[in-house]
Amino acid sequence: MKICRYLHEGKIEQAPEEHVPEGAQLLPPVNPGKIVCIGRNYADHARELGNEPPSEPIIFLKPPSAVIGPDDMIVIPPQSQRVDFEGELAIVVGKTAKGVRAADWRQYVAGFTCANDVTARDLQKKDVQFTRGKSFDTFLPLGPCLSADIDPSNARLVTRVNGEVRQDGNTSQMIFGCDRIFEFITGVMTLNPGDVILTGTPAGVGPLKSGDRVEVEITGIGTLRNVVI
Amino acid sequence: MKICRYLHEGKIEQAPEEHVPEGAQLLPPVNPGKIVCIGRNYADHARELGNEPPSEPIIFLKPPSAVIGPDDMIVIPPQSQRVDFEGELAIVVGKTAKGVRAADWRQYVAGFTCANDVTARDLQKKDVQFTRGKSFDTFLPLGPCLSADIDPSNARLVTRVNGEVRQDGNTSQMIFGCDRIFEFITGVMTLNPGDVILTGTPAGVGPLKSGDRVEVEITGIGTLRNVVI
Repeated sequence: MKICRYLHEGKIEQAPEEHVPEGAQLLPPVNPGKIVCIGRNYADHARELGNEPPSEPIIFLKPPSAVIGPDDMIVIPPQSQRVDFEGELAIVVGKTAKGVRAADWRQYVAGFTCANDVTARDLQKKDVQFTRGKSFDTFLPLGPCLSADIDPSNARLVTRVNGEVRQDGNTSQMIFGCDRIFEFITGVMTLNPGDVILTGTPAGVGPLKSGDRVEVEITGIGTLRNVVI
Repeated sequence: MKICRYLHEGKIEQAPEEHVPEGAQLLPPVNPGKIVCIGRNYADHARELGNEPPSEPIIFLKPPSAVIGPDDMIVIPPQSQRVDFEGELAIVVGKTAKGVRAADWRQYVAGFTCANDVTARDLQKKDVQFTRGKSFDTFLPLGPCLSADIDPSNARLVTRVNGEVRQDGNTSQMIFGCDRIFEFITGVMTLNPGDVILTGTPAGVGPLKSGDRVEVEITGIGTLRNVVI
């Protein structure tokens, strides 16, 4: 089942994807209280940016103010000359979770969605800390729906810009699978319902420019499509 | 006016400090949706950790799940051998703020409180990214009250461990004052009411161990006191 949140005739509703009325505005499938992200979780992507694959997960946070829905636009800020797309599988937390063992992680999950971890690459490099480069408003498209019916250890993830394939990976290539990520994060902090985990991006990241249409498609979830201005 | 939030007879209330009933449990003065922090904002502190003072503010985020109140305990996690206190002035946002000029920042502020940016120093160094080392549950004591009646450009900040002074600074020593911090952050992301900005810590940070009583005192706000376990 794929559940969408949407705005229709001034009201926020949710419904299975096939029942979303024509003309409704799709919203992010969740309003996260926090967003915990895993850096360099695909070896080929770590290497394309000149980094060794990590021996433990590297975590960072994005702010909830960065979240937009499938019908919103990604805004390139004046501070950056290089804004990149990063297609990712997002885990949506369903139950309060602390100290969860890897084997138990699925019990705490409401479902999955597509994410675009938009990144001002120049600011990320300059600051060393990832935060500024990843925290601009509109830098976290989520959607188009929440889906529980995928195999997160074997899902194809394709990112296209203006219809051209730029990333074509599979979540099976993650260095740390969803189970280990979940154990690692909940060993540090409590996750609450609605919190989101971004699981990292495969190789192929690249820049966006005004007018681009960027799509993140994950088998079993659908396509998250945003225009850049 | 100093406003406290507290739990009394099963209800959450807020009142001026002098009207808080005996036996009430003090809560964090605010429940932030996000916490934006400035790293290395006092030159002597940057140097004590072997870093040059930055040319632009360095921002990072702490998760809301780390927040505790003045009557809660700081828990040292098993992953770390070195957990440090960092006394800081916290700004509490009062109005939605985006693209605010430095000269206008005070209009967007509800008040100030004391913060302890508790940090697992070993994990911070290992990861390079600050997030894990600063995101454990209980790693952000806030309180004891929200005060609007201070001069944030000239407020004494003292941190004590078991009564012994360990940090004795003044917010006048910040590299980037509150006005410039506010402009910088709101140039990146929208701040919402209740969001918190941590403005950095002066020199003198050091480790905590189980049983320690750590206090952050800021003139015009009061003393935030927590016990470590």
